Parts: sequence; structure tokens; C-alpha cells
Amino acid sequence: AEDLHHSCQWGYGIRWGEGPTDTGMQRLALSEEDRSVRNWFIKTMQDLKCNVTVDEMGNIFAVRPGRRAGVPPTFIGSHLDTQPTGGRYDGILGVLSGIETIKTMNDMGLETEGGVGVVNWTNEEGARFPISMISSGVWAECIPLEQAHALQEVPTVASLPTAASAPETMKSALQKIDYLGDVPCSYKSTPMAAHFELHIEQGPHLVSAGQRVGVVTAVQAYKWFRLNVIGRDTHTGTTAFEHRADALYAFSRMMVRAREVAAAKGCLASVGIVEAKPGSVNTVPGLVSFSLDIRGPETELVVEVEKELRSEFDAIAAAEGAGIGKPCRVEWTLDFDSPAVKFHEDCIDCVQQSAHAVVADAPVADTKSLVRSIMSGAGHDSVFTSKRVPTSMIFIPCKDGLSHHPEEFSTAEDCATGASVILQAVVRYDRK
Amino acid sequence: AEDLHHSCQWGYGIRWGEGPTDTGMQRLALSEEDRSVRNWFIKTMQDLKCNVTVDEMGNIFAVRPGRRAGVPPTFIGSHLDTQPTGGRYDGILGVLSGIETIKTMNDMGLETEGGVGVVNWTNEEGARFPISMISSGVWAECIPLEQAHALQEVPTVASLPTAASAPETMKSALQKIDYLGDVPCSYKSTPMAAHFELHIEQGPHLVSAGQRVGVVTAVQAYKWFRLNVIGRDTHTGTTAFEHRADALYAFSRMMVRAREVAAAKGCLASVGIVEAKPGSVNTVPGLVSFSLDIRGPETELVVEVEKELRSEFDAIAAAEGAGIGKPCRVEWTLDFDSPAVKFHEDCIDCVQQSAHAVVADAPVADTKSLVRSIMSGAGHDSVFTSKRVPTSMIFIPCKDGLSHHPEEFSTAEDCATGASVILQAVVRYDRK
Ligand SMILES: NC(=O)NCCC(=O)O
Ligand SMILES: NC(=O)NCCC(=O)O
Repeated sequence: AEDLHHSCQWGYGIRWGEGPTDTGMQRLALSEEDRSVRNWFIKTMQDLKCNVTVDEMGNIFAVRPGRRAGVPPTFIGSHLDTQPTGGRYDGILGVLSGIETIKTMNDMGLETEGGVGVVNWTNEEGARFPISMISSGVWAECIPLEQAHALQEVPTVASLPTAASAPETMKSALQKIDYLGDVPCSYKSTPMAAHFELHIEQGPHLVSAGQRVGVVTAVQAYKWFRLNVIGRDTHTGTTAFEHRADALYAFSRMMVRAREVAAAKGCLASVGIVEAKPGSVNTVPGLVSFSLDIRGPETELVVEVEKELRSEFDAIAAAEGAGIGKPCRVEWTLDFDSPAVKFHEDCIDCVQQSAHAVVADAPVADTKSLVRSIMSGAGHDSVFTSKRVPTSMIFIPCKDGLSHHPEEFSTAEDCATGASVILQAVVRYDRK
Repeated sequence: AEDLHHSCQWGYGIRWGEGPTDTGMQRLALSEEDRSVRNWFIKTMQDLKCNVTVDEMGNIFAVRPGRRAGVPPTFIGSHLDTQPTGGRYDGILGVLSGIETIKTMNDMGLETEGGVGVVNWTNEEGARFPISMISSGVWAECIPLEQAHALQEVPTVASLPTAASAPETMKSALQKIDYLGDVPCSYKSTPMAAHFELHIEQGPHLVSAGQRVGVVTAVQAYKWFRLNVIGRDTHTGTTAFEHRADALYAFSRMMVRAREVAAAKGCLASVGIVEAKPGSVNTVPGLVSFSLDIRGPETELVVEVEKELRSEFDAIAAAEGAGIGKPCRVEWTLDFDSPAVKFHEDCIDCVQQSAHAVVADAPVADTKSLVRSIMSGAGHDSVFTSKRVPTSMIFIPCKDGLSHHPEEFSTAEDCATGASVILQAVVRYDRK
């Protein structure tokens, strides 16, 4: 926990309380703050006698060698980047639990068959470069390296006062902070025996049920789109509603409808970014660009929501501007598609057994009831590692189920519980 | 017309056709392009033997002396600034018709009793600094100079790649382009006998009726607000709709409702600027800021729409986040209030008589039917001059009634008609 807050000195975000650690985090991927925490991570791992490599996506792999040479290490992985108004736990906890695991193994003089590694994946959040988990995606060879390198930062980041004048690509941003490594980004070049990840739940289930550990068996599906609504700029004071093709009004109707359609299918639909142009008080916006994030427990459900929204959005666009024979149009671009995932039985078993062991001393009759299986609402790098190697995850509760918010919080005790579970899970997996 | 397009070389906007003048304009108030066209305007007026002064708001007054000293001049005024995606006529036509008038008077050796002046008012559009007609407002002593000097540019302009790192105030922007004059900005320091303004209609009435001149008798009321909706940042993938206080969803419902409420009262309500923070694909926005422009033919109607929207927006905000006991909140700031205006009978008469005279040769039976009285949907500097001196305006038709758009267009013939009407109106007023 000390280390966790120590690592948060690079990228303090919004302050929400009086205490020294009562701030959120703003450490966008490949920012100067990210460079600093990466340097600290490498130094820390080298001091712990790990071998460190950096690949072409800036992923950092630190390995504590095992007894047997030539056997791929078992990895603990997560990410050190955050949302623009993020907290101190999302991702950070996972990497820090990896460091803690290596420290404990060193202290105990514990030897493993294969090595044990810790990986910091680049731009997991997708907050700066709008494909989440992109670098584990390249590692899994699910996303082409060229596409990832060419990906541009989102406009909201590009317009921050500190930003460069032209939007950065991932490649230029990697170069700028000296993290464009030369190891090919691939599971072939950096093989793993398995991948474990500890994370805060980011949702309300554990905390509201008073449970202590979630054994993550699956991750819900999601798709990210960028949409443009194209209407016509015109004067706000002289143009009757019937004569408008108001792209922002059409957007508003779309957003309202998206929630209805998604809710009816037990899915989510969310807009996080919106930009209206030209952006003048007395000009009706002729162009609106926005992000759309659709999620659901099954891949097929997300596809159904998408399909319905495509036709509903077309109808809304067609109605706006029909009076002047210049209806709005809507264009969709798919940025990212992450089908639903099921984790590996062997890894799930290791996590479950470890969780039961760790909570066994708790002062309740049925300690097993403190552990539950859970599906992840958020994506994680484990989604992509699971395409290539056995994978599963551990969740711990977080306050109010709140995440992507400065006040995101988990107790030191819950963090310690998670760290113990992941240490045991890795050792169990190594001994299989 | 040649001069008009000549003056458009400073601040070319969006190209919409093949011809040399088939571009819109992007000449935001007090930009480098604005400096250039101002320099050209002053040089042109001095070559025409006018005396030029610049006041503390950068308003430029150029006066051709009359026969009698000590009599205030009759002014022709409008503005050379444009919208970010504006056209070549809005405002520009009015100033250019003033230049044309002075040229014609010089050519004809025409003497007037009082002087005849041309004024270029600063930031009429309100597109960069969000109070329209602010500098004629200061001149009329309706807006305090300090408030105007301290006004900040809108975020959409502040985030343009060419923008300074901190948002400019009007005063710093005036200094930057060397147009912070030393004449006090007041009708007392720069008195006028009357103010006439030629403008494109910016609406569809003249063009669709095939009429050639609008005699503007009134201007509708409008109010500009800046609103904040405050909700809570949270994760898009893990947060059920019931657990959200989604400021952008609340905004969308507000915008949809605003149109309904305004339409029911024969008014307009428009959003031109919207910003959602933090601006990340997978974070539900906890803060949305937007502009709201409410207009109506009577001051009281605008107040009624505002009142109804205040209570409707509160209800929408209260509903979003109620499930977690953290409902959204909405805050209103009034940026600008422009009650409905009636122009001066004497000026209206001069315009009407001049218009009838100018169209008298038209090949139709009832030439008077080519002229109509009209209320302006848009605000103009004439709104503020009318508070202090007799004022009225002349409208000419524009293509499709379209304005605040690069393709804004009036024919050379219509522009010439307008210029003839304003010349005659000024002379008639001078002789009264
Ligand atoms: N865990 C997390 O917040 N990941 C970001 C990817 C997502 O949007 O789910
Ligand atoms: N004429 C014109 O577009 N003026 C800008 C002020 C307004 O929004 O009406």
C-alpha cells in the first residue's frame, strides 16, 4: 500500500480530501508522468534482481528467473496509466501487487519452477488512444502493430493546454518518452506460461454483498465507435426549427434513445466524448462527433443493440433537416471490438483455491461465502492474454463501486487480501 | 462588390465552390486577420479623406466632414468580424456599403450638412467573445467597459491550434493587435446624429417572397446563458444506468426538451457550444458546459421560455442520479440580455422612402410590393445605437435565407440595391 501511494506521486489528479493520499490520478498513457512512473517501475524491478525488457508498444516485462531455464514465466500484469480524472487503484493496484509478490518471494527465498514476471501494459485505459488494452492486443497478435502505432490521441487530450500542436500518434508518443522498445511486441517473443491480474471490481457487487474476493470467470463484450452527425451550420436567431439540420439536436435525440434501446436488452450504451462544430453560441452546429461505448454480457446482445441503434440513428438523422430537403447524415466508425471472454479453468481454479485459503481465518461461519465468481464489466489486458495463454483475474471490493473517478478507493486490508491471493495463485499455477 | 471580395482576402474560410470568391470567411474578432482588414479599412478611409479614430473597444470611426462644424455625423455601421465558419456578407456588406457611400459622395462632390461616418464595431458576432454587439453596447453605456475588457474568449476558440495557451480577454486581444485605442468608448465622446445599417436578412422571408428590400422596424429579444450540468464521473462498463449521474445524458434530455418548450411559445432555443468532461470514451461525463440562446419576438416570451426551462432542467437533473442519492445539478449564468427593440420612426421613414425610390424602375406593376417591413431575427449593433440615437436598418435577400455558413450569398444586384438605399437614406436624414 505504501508503494502504491508512492507510485502515485507521478500524476496527481483531482484532490477530494485533506489527507496526503486523498487525490485522484491523471496519468494519461505515454505522458511525462507515465514516463516517470515507468522509470521508477524499471528501477524497482532491477533492484529486485529482475530482468527487464521493453517491447515495440512500450510494454515493460520484468522477470524473476525460476529454477528451470527455457520455461516461460508466469506473469502478473496490469497497467500504470489512468483516466484523465482517474483514481489510485484502477490498474495501479495490479502492477503494485506484482511488485509486492516479487518482494515477498525474494524475502522468503522462494524458488519457482518457471520464472515469475510482472508486466506493465501500455494504454490499457484507452483514455488517450481510443483502443483500450491495445498493447496486450498487439502482443496477442489480435491488433496489427502498424494500426496501433498509427492510432491518434482523442481530441479532448489533443486540446489540453500542455498538448503538442498536432495530435500525437502512439508511435510518436512512445518515442517522445523513450519507450519505443526493440523487442517485437508478440506472445512469440515474450512468451508467458499464464497471466494473472488483480483489480478493483469497479462495480458494486462485492462491496454491497460484503464479499471480499471475486474470482473472475468472464468479461462482458464491448464495442467502441466514433460517430459523426453531419448537418448544416446556420444562424440560431433567424432559422426556424423546421429549417434546421441541427447536428447537436440530432445527437441529443440519439443519446436519449441509446439508453432506452440498450436498457431494453440488459446492455449499456454510453457517450464519453462529444465535440460540436463550429462551436459558436449563435451558430447551429453542422457537425457533431462523439464516442459510443456499447457493452453487454453476450457478444450477440451487443451486436443487436448496435444494429437497432444504426437504424434508429438513421431515422433521427433523416428527420432533422427533412423540412429543407437537407437531412442530417450519420457515419459510424468501429474503433474497437472486444467479444465476450471466458477465462481458463486451470487459472480460475488456482484463484479460487487461493481465495478460499486467504479468507479462511475470517470471523464468519461460512468463509467460502466471502468469495464469489464474477463477470467483469470492464475490459482488462487479461482479455487479450487469454487469447494466447491461460488467464484469470481477482477482484477486490471498492467503495461505492465507483471507478474512473478521483475518489476511487479500496481499503488497505482489501488490497492486502488481493495481493495474498495473487501470490498464492501464481505459486499454485507454477506447481501444477 | 469588388471591394467586398477584396476585403475578404483577410480571413478566407471554408471553400464551397470553384470560383475565386467561392469561400466562406473565418475572421474571428481581434484575430490577426481582423487586424489586417482593419488596417485596410483605415487606409481606405484615409485615402477617401476621412478622419479616423479608434476607441477603447477597438471600434473604428471614419468621418467625412460636413458643411457645418459641431454637428454630429450620421453613421453607417456594421462589423468586419465573422463566425468561425461564416460567409462573406454578414456584417462585411454593411461596412463596405459605408465605404461605397463615401466614395460615391466624393465622386459626386456631394456636400452634407452634418458629416457622414462609417463605423466598424468590434466583436459584433459574439463568436469569439460571447457577448454579441458588445462594443456598440459599451459605446451606448449599456455594458460597462471593465466587464467588456475582462470578457474571455469561448473555449472552442481557446482550443484552436493557433490560440494562445491561456484564454485571451478582450483587452489582451485588443492590445495584441494594436487596436486598444485611447478615445473613450461612449456615445458622449463619439456622438452620432443617427445610425443606419445595411445587412443581409439572414432569414428566408425576402428571398422566398421575391422581395428586394426589407425595412427593418424591430429586432427580436434574446438572452444568452452558459450552463453547467454537474454529475459524477464513473466507469461506462461497470456502472448500471440507475447508478449514474450522467451529465451528458441529462444535457441531451435538456436539449430535446428546450426545443419543445420554445416551439410551443413561438420562440427559439439553441445550443451552439457543448463541452463534456473529462472527455474519455469509457468515463461517463461528470461535467457538461453548454451555451443556450433563447429568442422570441417579445421580451416577455423569452422570459417565459427561460422560466419554464429553469424548472424543466432542474427536474431532468434531479432525475439523473436520484438512484444513488447524488442527482445532477444545473447552474445558469446569464452572459447577455438583449430585450426586443423598436427602431426610430424618422429613420424607418428615410429607409422606406429610399427603398421605394430605388426599386421604382423595377419591371413589375406594383413596385412598392418589392419592399416590406420586417423584424430582425438576429441582433445587430443597431440594437445598441438605437438606445442613444435614431436608428434603423435595411435588409436585402440572401440565398436560401442561409447565414453563419460559408455559402452565405447575396447577388451583386441585391448588394447594389442595398447600397443605393442606404446612401439615399443617409442623405434624406441629413436634409431633415
Ligand atoms: N479496467 C478498466 O477500466 N479498463 C478500461 C477498459 C474499459 O473500458 O473497460
Ligand atoms: N447579425 C448577426 O449575425 N449578429 C450576431 C448576433 C446574433 O446572434 O444575432
